[in-house]
Amino acid sequence: MKRFITLFAALLICVVTFAQQALWGNTQIVSPDIHENNTVTFRLKAPKAIRVQITGDFLTVQKTGKFEGPRIADLKEGKDGVWEYTTPEPLEPELYSYSFIVDGMRMHDPANVYLIRDVATLTNVFIIGGGRADLYKVNKVPHGTVSRVWYNSPSLDMERRMTVYTPAGYETSGKRYPVFYLLHGMGGDEEAWISLGRTSQILDNLIAQGKAKPMIVVMTNGNAVQEAAPGESSLGMVPPTMRLPKSMEGSFEQAFPDVVKFVDKNYRTVKSKSGRAIAGLSMGGFHSLHISKQYPDMFDYVGLFSAAIFPNENATSPVYQDLEGKLKIQFAKKPALYWIAIGETDFLYKANEDFRKLLDGKGYKYTYYETGEGHIWKNWRIYLAEFAPMLFK
Amino acid sequence: MKRFITLFAALLICVVTFAQQALWGNTQIVSPDIHENNTVTFRLKAPKAIRVQITGDFLTVQKTGKFEGPRIADLKEGKDGVWEYTTPEPLEPELYSYSFIVDGMRMHDPANVYLIRDVATLTNVFIIGGGRADLYKVNKVPHGTVSRVWYNSPSLDMERRMTVYTPAGYETSGKRYPVFYLLHGMGGDEEAWISLGRTSQILDNLIAQGKAKPMIVVMTNGNAVQEAAPGESSLGMVPPTMRLPKSMEGSFEQAFPDVVKFVDKNYRTVKSKSGRAIAGLSMGGFHSLHISKQYPDMFDYVGLFSAAIFPNENATSPVYQDLEGKLKIQFAKKPALYWIAIGETDFLYKANEDFRKLLDGKGYKYTYYETGEGHIWKNWRIYLAEFAPMLFK
Repeated sequence: MKRFITLFAALLICVVTFAQQALWGNTQIVSPDIHENNTVTFRLKAPKAIRVQITGDFLTVQKTGKFEGPRIADLKEGKDGVWEYTTPEPLEPELYSYSFIVDGMRMHDPANVYLIRDVATLTNVFIIGGGRADLYKVNKVPHGTVSRVWYNSPSLDMERRMTVYTPAGYETSGKRYPVFYLLHGMGGDEEAWISLGRTSQILDNLIAQGKAKPMIVVMTNGNAVQEAAPGESSLGMVPPTMRLPKSMEGSFEQAFPDVVKFVDKNYRTVKSKSGRAIAGLSMGGFHSLHISKQYPDMFDYVGLFSAAIFPNENATSPVYQDLEGKLKIQFAKKPALYWIAIGETDFLYKANEDFRKLLDGKGYKYTYYETGEGHIWKNWRIYLAEFAPMLFK
Repeated sequence: MKRFITLFAALLICVVTFAQQALWGNTQIVSPDIHENNTVTFRLKAPKAIRVQITGDFLTVQKTGKFEGPRIADLKEGKDGVWEYTTPEPLEPELYSYSFIVDGMRMHDPANVYLIRDVATLTNVFIIGGGRADLYKVNKVPHGTVSRVWYNSPSLDMERRMTVYTPAGYETSGKRYPVFYLLHGMGGDEEAWISLGRTSQILDNLIAQGKAKPMIVVMTNGNAVQEAAPGESSLGMVPPTMRLPKSMEGSFEQAFPDVVKFVDKNYRTVKSKSGRAIAGLSMGGFHSLHISKQYPDMFDYVGLFSAAIFPNENATSPVYQDLEGKLKIQFAKKPALYWIAIGETDFLYKANEDFRKLLDGKGYKYTYYETGEGHIWKNWRIYLAEFAPMLFK
C-alpha cells in the first residue's frame, strides 16, 4: 500500500489556529529559569513596553506584624525586546507565585503554563525544591487518586461537589481507611487545598516516606450557597468572588453530617471518631472548631490552621450558642489531638491567643504550633505537612 | 464572652498579597460580557497601550480547504483606558477560545479566570449556550465522578496517569458498566478530553437526557514516554511540547491491554468486547484504529475522529504490520460500530478518503459522518456528542 505523507511532520505543522503562536513563538523564552544555585530568572518578550515589573510572594515581606503588600521589582530590557529579572539571592525551597506588570497592567507569564487560582486571581507558580518543599513536588512514589465527586446534602437541599483523595492502594487493598476532612478559607472552594495546598503531593510523599498513615482526605466546599467551585456548577463560568453569603453563619457547619454520611457510605472508611480528623485554614479553621464541638463524637483529631475563632456577633445560628458549654463536652471526651497553628504576624493572632487563654483557663489540652509570617498559603502547606503525620496513630 | 472584631469584614479586608489587586481592581471590568442576543463584548483595561487586539476561534475562517489562521480584530479605547470589542454578529452556540494582543504581545483576559490549556497554549474560554452547546455546560443534572488515577503499565515499565469518568450512581448501584476508552491527539494528554473536550459535561447531559447509556469513560495518556500530563509527573513543571518521541511508533498501542486490565480490575466493568468502545481524535484516532485491529476481540465500537490513518513510513512496530490482514480479521468479527468522522477542510481528509476506499473495496461496514471545518476541538466535541449515544445499545 502506498505510504502517504510523513505523518509526524504533517501533524506538527498543522497545529491549528493560535496554538501555533505559543508553540513556535514563545518556546524561545524560558521563564521562570531556575538556576542550579536556586536563583531564578524571569523573562518576558515585550518589545514595545515602557516598563516591565514583576510581583510575587518571594518578594513579599510580612515581618513587622503589619501587612506590607507585595514588593515589586523591575525587569531590565535586553536584546530583541526580552526583559529580564534575576533574583539577587537564591530562593528558599517553596512553592512561589508571581505575575508580570507591563506598563501598569498585570499579566501572566506566557512562557509558564502553570497557573493556580486563588479566589479570583490566577497567578503563575513554580517550585524551588529541597527541604520541606520536596513534599510539594510530584515524586516517583505511589500516587493516590484524586476525584471530583458530587454528593447530596439534604440539609442544604443541594447537590454539592467535593474533592476526594484516596491513597495509593485504596482501590484494591480491601482495607478500611481513616478520613481527614480538610476545609478551605473564605473565597476558596473544593479546589483550594488540592491546587494551592498541594494536598495530593504532600499526602503521597508523607505516606510513601512512612510518615503519615494512608488516609482518605475529603476537601469540601464550605460556601453553603455554592454547589461547586466557580465554573463547575450550573451557574456557569461566573467570576469568583469572596463575598458569598452564608459562609460563616452556621449552615455549612450544621450540614456537615451530610458529608460524613456520604463518605462513610461511599468509601471504605473507619466509621468511628478515632478514624476521623477535621482541620481547616482561616474560615475552614473556624468551621473545624465549630463543627467539632457541635458534633463532639465525630472527630478525634482537630486542626485549626490560622483559624478564625469567634463568630460574627450577628450570627445567630444554634451552632454558635454556648461555645464554652460545648467545648466543655468536647474536651471531656478527650480528643486525641487538638492542634492550633498560626503565624506570628497573622491578623487572627490575637483571636487565637484569646482562644488559647480560654482553653488554658479551663485546663483543656491542646498542642500549639507557631510559625513566622502570617495568613498565607506557605503556612497552610506547612501546617498540613505537620498535622497529617500526627493523625490516626 | 467578649465579641471581637466583625470577622467577616476583617477576613474580607485582609485578603493577602496580590490577590487583592484582582479582587478589588479587576472586578470592575466584565469580560467577556455575553449579551442577551449572544453578541459578546470583550474589555481590557490598558491605559498605556497603543494597540489592543483580540484573536479567537470565533473569528477564524477555515472554509476554503486551506488553513487561514485566526483573524484578529481591534479593540477601541474608551474612557479610563478600557478597550472594547463587540462581535458584530451574535455568536453561534459553542465553546470559544480567545486571547488579547497588547502592542503585539499575547496575553490572557485578566477579568476571565477560565483558561484551558491546549498543548503549550493557555487561552481564555467562554460558552455561548443553546443547541448542542448546552451539552458542554454544567447543568442541573446528576453528575458523574472525575478521577485522576495512576495505573501500572508493565509493558512500558511505568506508573502512568489517566482520567476516569464514572457516571452518576456508579458508586452505589452495584451494577457493571461498559467502558469507553477516549484518546487524545498529538501534544495532548490525559487532561485534553476532560478540559477542551468537555467529556464529563457531555456525558452527564447525554446520560441525564436518556440519550447515552451510563458508561465509564477512560481518558489515557497516549504519549508512551510520559508518565502524566506536564506538571503532574516527577519531571516537574516543565513546558509542554508537541515534539514527544514514541507517540506514534507502536509502543502505546502495544501496551494498551495494560490499561484495559487495570480498568477491568479496579472498576465494575462489563468485561467483554460488547462492553468496550475505543475512539480518539487525530493521533488518538490513529491509536484507536491500530489498537482495535491489533486486538480484534477487545472493542465492539470504534470511533475515528479526524484520525491520522497510515503510520509513518519509518515506523517498524509489529503493530503496523499487515494492516489489511488485521482489518480483515477485525471486520470478519463484525464490530457493532465502526465510525469515521472528519471535517471537510481537515488536512487528514484525503487520508480518510483513501482509508474509506480501502474499506469500501473490501465491503467492510462502517458509518461515515462529515462536518464542516477542519482539525479543531469544535468538531471533536461534536463527534463525541454524536458517538457516545450510539454505544452499548
